[in-house]
Amino acid sequence: MSNSFLDKVFDLHRGGKIILASKYPVRTNEELAMVYTPGVAQVVKAIQQDKQKAKDYTIIGHTVGMFTDGTAILGLGNVGPVAGMPVMEGKAMIYQEFAGLNAYPLLLGTTDVDAIVETIKNLAPSFSLIHLEDIAAPNCFAILERLEQLLDIPVFHDDQYGTALIVLAGLMNSLKVLKKEVADMNIVINGAGAAGIAIAKVLNEYGLTNITLCDSKGIVSLTRSDLNIYKKEILNLIGIERPLGTLSDALDQADIFIGVSVGGALNPTMIQNMNNQPIIFALANPVPEILPTELKDFDGIIATGRSDFPNQINNAVGYPGFVKAVLSSGIKKIGIHHIIKAATAIAETITEQELTRDYIIPNVFNANVVPNIVKSLAK
Amino acid sequence: MSNSFLDKVFDLHRGGKIILASKYPVRTNEELAMVYTPGVAQVVKAIQQDKQKAKDYTIIGHTVGMFTDGTAILGLGNVGPVAGMPVMEGKAMIYQEFAGLNAYPLLLGTTDVDAIVETIKNLAPSFSLIHLEDIAAPNCFAILERLEQLLDIPVFHDDQYGTALIVLAGLMNSLKVLKKEVADMNIVINGAGAAGIAIAKVLNEYGLTNITLCDSKGIVSLTRSDLNIYKKEILNLIGIERPLGTLSDALDQADIFIGVSVGGALNPTMIQNMNNQPIIFALANPVPEILPTELKDFDGIIATGRSDFPNQINNAVGYPGFVKAVLSSGIKKIGIHHIIKAATAIAETITEQELTRDYIIPNVFNANVVPNIVKSLAK
Repeated sequence: MSNSFLDKVFDLHRGGKIILASKYPVRTNEELAMVYTPGVAQVVKAIQQDKQKAKDYTIIGHTVGMFTDGTAILGLGNVGPVAGMPVMEGKAMIYQEFAGLNAYPLLLGTTDVDAIVETIKNLAPSFSLIHLEDIAAPNCFAILERLEQLLDIPVFHDDQYGTALIVLAGLMNSLKVLKKEVADMNIVINGAGAAGIAIAKVLNEYGLTNITLCDSKGIVSLTRSDLNIYKKEILNLIGIERPLGTLSDALDQADIFIGVSVGGALNPTMIQNMNNQPIIFALANPVPEILPTELKDFDGIIATGRSDFPNQINNAVGYPGFVKAVLSSGIKKIGIHHIIKAATAIAETITEQELTRDYIIPNVFNANVVPNIVKSLAK
Repeated sequence: MSNSFLDKVFDLHRGGKIILASKYPVRTNEELAMVYTPGVAQVVKAIQQDKQKAKDYTIIGHTVGMFTDGTAILGLGNVGPVAGMPVMEGKAMIYQEFAGLNAYPLLLGTTDVDAIVETIKNLAPSFSLIHLEDIAAPNCFAILERLEQLLDIPVFHDDQYGTALIVLAGLMNSLKVLKKEVADMNIVINGAGAAGIAIAKVLNEYGLTNITLCDSKGIVSLTRSDLNIYKKEILNLIGIERPLGTLSDALDQADIFIGVSVGGALNPTMIQNMNNQPIIFALANPVPEILPTELKDFDGIIATGRSDFPNQINNAVGYPGFVKAVLSSGIKKIGIHHIIKAATAIAETITEQELTRDYIIPNVFNANVVPNIVKSLAK
């Protein structure tokens, strides 16, 4: 990054990037008497008599509580909640700009699962949806599951479902471009954290069932003794036992590589052993598993998380519209079928005429994405 | 209230009165890359290396976590947290309009003291100050005390210190107008909840030490067996034992009445038994302890919480500037001496030439109030 770019970055962050603002100015005593006491008491009484009126007369109906414990910020790892705030503010900006939703960036001063669940539960009346952000696996799975049981509002973990959503949308279009069949695909997912496991779940449900999951120790196999319960669960769900092996072994004759791991995890030799016209989603951030520029005579499709190459797989294309759709359709618990419907809507935002190997996913500023997702989940 | 006023009130509340907005639009991929990934990672790293930088590059430095459990909303009582949201939003508007501070309105789905303390503690990294709002006594005392012990950021309970602040400012000016001496004053406070007890503490420290506290059962006296620990504590602080009696008994030869109780608690006969030129602060909301129109041939000063009479004693004159002053001067724990300094600054915003019996407190829109308070607490 150039120095002038970095200077501008720090300038834009000064004092924070968001503001909790009044929707209109309050400039006279009469106006103050309407938005504050005594006028406000009438609104309080109306809601007291009918809680549903809170959706009409307060911010709650379009407000998201966005929580992080700072244990998995971007590709930077456990930097702590306070250092995670610039990312949280960025997500809040995107929520408002793209979907008109308020998302309070809230930092958790604890990484204890019980404490996080209790804290979020105790604040739930403030919001219409809980967004978990940048919480490391495996805690994120337990927190999501327990909150889904405890709360009567939906809970969304962007690193799980948000990533799976946009990956599936990209894969749908990649398969269309290459005229490949869903059922035939041999898939390798590298990274068995929040994103990798959620992607495996969602792809499996969609019919992309031939999945091999890898982590930093190689193929995730039930013969290994170091698996957490979530890795075991996903292996049971996928339902085929895998032999021990390296990522390189897994990629032999694979069709699709999805990397949610670390920069440089992939090399051109590994790709040579994949089937013809492979699909490579190298999503590690900011350095992908392999750079598009490292591939010569490549006959497949490559996507990364970066905006300086084609096919940017960016959560921001998905979560604002998805959360807006969940809220407007009154969904109380997010299911994989919602993810698949929304991914289809994102994919279909690009017409078959427009689709190319370098244009499989809509740009984050494509104004059709959010309404298309909202339509896909409407009752 | 007229129907057209009420219609306008509900219109202004539709969808909520506040918005979590971006400080500037994000319209291109390059801008997105600056406020979000990959640019944001540089800011994350800078804060990770030096936590102090969070004040420069995030919203935290001028953000307040404002929490209610909905147990004491305005004069309406325990209406629950969700019905309390319109008041919370109103306070957030005032924070931003008058002091440029972000205050997230956060609703607690529990009234358990331990759960509230834990929840707020776990979220504290998000904020520079905790504002407790509309939490009933006696829980509010325990919550404030425990959070002050646990947190390294200041905790402010508006119903306690915010009310005491503005009452003291009004009293300072009332005494100036009537040329009365602080030490001679005989004071009756009616209402021994959060506001009454905090007012007693602050006035006592200021030198208005001859205080009789009353509650719904009459004079708060150590000979009563029904006192909670906070009522006992304040009696010990005031240091003079009071005989049992009614509010009417207490007012006999009193100089100052401060009502933070219920509408109609005071009648003209009680006031006739007070000393000459009495000071009446009838602050119950929306119906004061006595209406100014009920007083004939009155030679003292009367103030209420209402904007339709002179001398409106309104917390909104105090808390935005006070909290801004606490934050900008780096105060970690709010003390009574801070309240007294700020009250002096509020009082002195009106010059001695401007002061009259009907103008003892600045209007909430007086642009000098906030800067004067900030100056009063500056190092």
